[in-house]
Amino acid sequence: MPGTVQSIERAAAVLRLLAAAPDGLGVADLGNALGLAKTTVHGILRTLHQVGFVEQDRSGAHYHLSDAFGRLGESYLDPNELRSRAINWADSLASRSGEVVRVGRLVEGKVEVVHHVFRPDDSDQDLDVGTTLPPHATALGKAVLAYDTSARPRTLEAYTTRTITDPVKLGEELATVRSRGWATEFEEHTVELGSIAAPIRGLGGLVVGAVGLTGRIERICDSRLRHRADLVTMVRATADAIARDLRDDT
Amino acid sequence: MPGTVQSIERAAAVLRLLAAAPDGLGVADLGNALGLAKTTVHGILRTLHQVGFVEQDRSGAHYHLSDAFGRLGESYLDPNELRSRAINWADSLASRSGEVVRVGRLVEGKVEVVHHVFRPDDSDQDLDVGTTLPPHATALGKAVLAYDTSARPRTLEAYTTRTITDPVKLGEELATVRSRGWATEFEEHTVELGSIAAPIRGLGGLVVGAVGLTGRIERICDSRLRHRADLVTMVRATADAIARDLRDDT
Repeated sequence: MPGTVQSIERAAAVLRLLAAAPDGLGVADLGNALGLAKTTVHGILRTLHQVGFVEQDRSGAHYHLSDAFGRLGESYLDPNELRSRAINWADSLASRSGEVVRVGRLVEGKVEVVHHVFRPDDSDQDLDVGTTLPPHATALGKAVLAYDTSARPRTLEAYTTRTITDPVKLGEELATVRSRGWATEFEEHTVELGSIAAPIRGLGGLVVGAVGLTGRIERICDSRLRHRADLVTMVRATADAIARDLRDDT
Repeated sequence: MPGTVQSIERAAAVLRLLAAAPDGLGVADLGNALGLAKTTVHGILRTLHQVGFVEQDRSGAHYHLSDAFGRLGESYLDPNELRSRAINWADSLASRSGEVVRVGRLVEGKVEVVHHVFRPDDSDQDLDVGTTLPPHATALGKAVLAYDTSARPRTLEAYTTRTITDPVKLGEELATVRSRGWATEFEEHTVELGSIAAPIRGLGGLVVGAVGLTGRIERICDSRLRHRADLVTMVRATADAIARDLRDDT
């Protein structure tokens, strides 16, 4: 039976001490209290800061619990943050694939589009940012829904004859998404269109959104109507690059 | 510059998911959501449970945030828990040293005696459990005060001519306690009595109390009036044994 995780025990102790100290505490205070070296305390505080649990005062000398710590259940990632980290990578994916690229996140059971890059041709296209997509009928949606721990959507509305409307089938589809790490869509939202999307994992593995490309079936799929492996690789690499940028941000 | 601590990031992600799931989540839910193996999730949950942040439902299938998680600043260790873990070790220390043994914890700036073992002779002794001691004037008090991050006591009352009443001197004394890991008392609370105490560290290094022995100076100190090294070793070993028992308890 594996034991407990020492760094988590220490982080919990730091949180308790900060919770009991309205004026905040410095690194030395915490190190003294817990019998830990300053570098160890620094590493813990840096991590707790990055996950949004603690904040520094202006002088940088004292740490205190963040206001957000009291509202842990709310989404911790500002959509602007996700968008700003995704912009360059999404642009690059659109130009390399020649397809529409969207970045979305799950909000109240729907996929909110937070970034949208037009297909790089001269066609007329409408900006989707701010609109929502049905999670069960889109690759972008399945890529986030597969990792969501809240209840599944109750009513599965049909957008085409290919939309998955059977909850059991949707469950199987989401298990597939989890096991391979990416999601597909084949005329499930719009006839003649296909899509490939991958989840974007933030700190600790939390899925904070997804990125995907959408295009005509004959471009997204190969001659055997399977989603093209080269596009899957591109989409996954894009999701990983955005995730890396999100995690590196302090 | 050290990076962040991955296990803390993961624990934070688990806490966020649980905070957003009023009905609780199972190990598989969390593993799926975060892309982690079940054994990894188990280790994180076990630790979060032990530090009092999460609870299991009766069936054991679901985890949810504990009520105490919303009141982190309060002392998380039930004094009965400290007492029950300390009883055997304190008894053993009293019989080996031949002195009075007390276990205490800091409550609102005073040391509350949670366990008291009489000196193993036939003398009349009063039970101290539930009474409080001044932290600045006792070894038991200094052993907890040295690791406390809240404000120091403002008024340092003199109990004898040897009580430390100068805040600067008390600060120096507490720094000494931290650097060597144990505290002493030399006629500072009661004339002719001396004491040796050591902090009891709970999970993550949190000091949850102290254990100490008290006796006549000629028995506690050597011929050069220094606290006896063999007694210091006994007291420290007792504190460590209690701490181990506390940490092993799930």
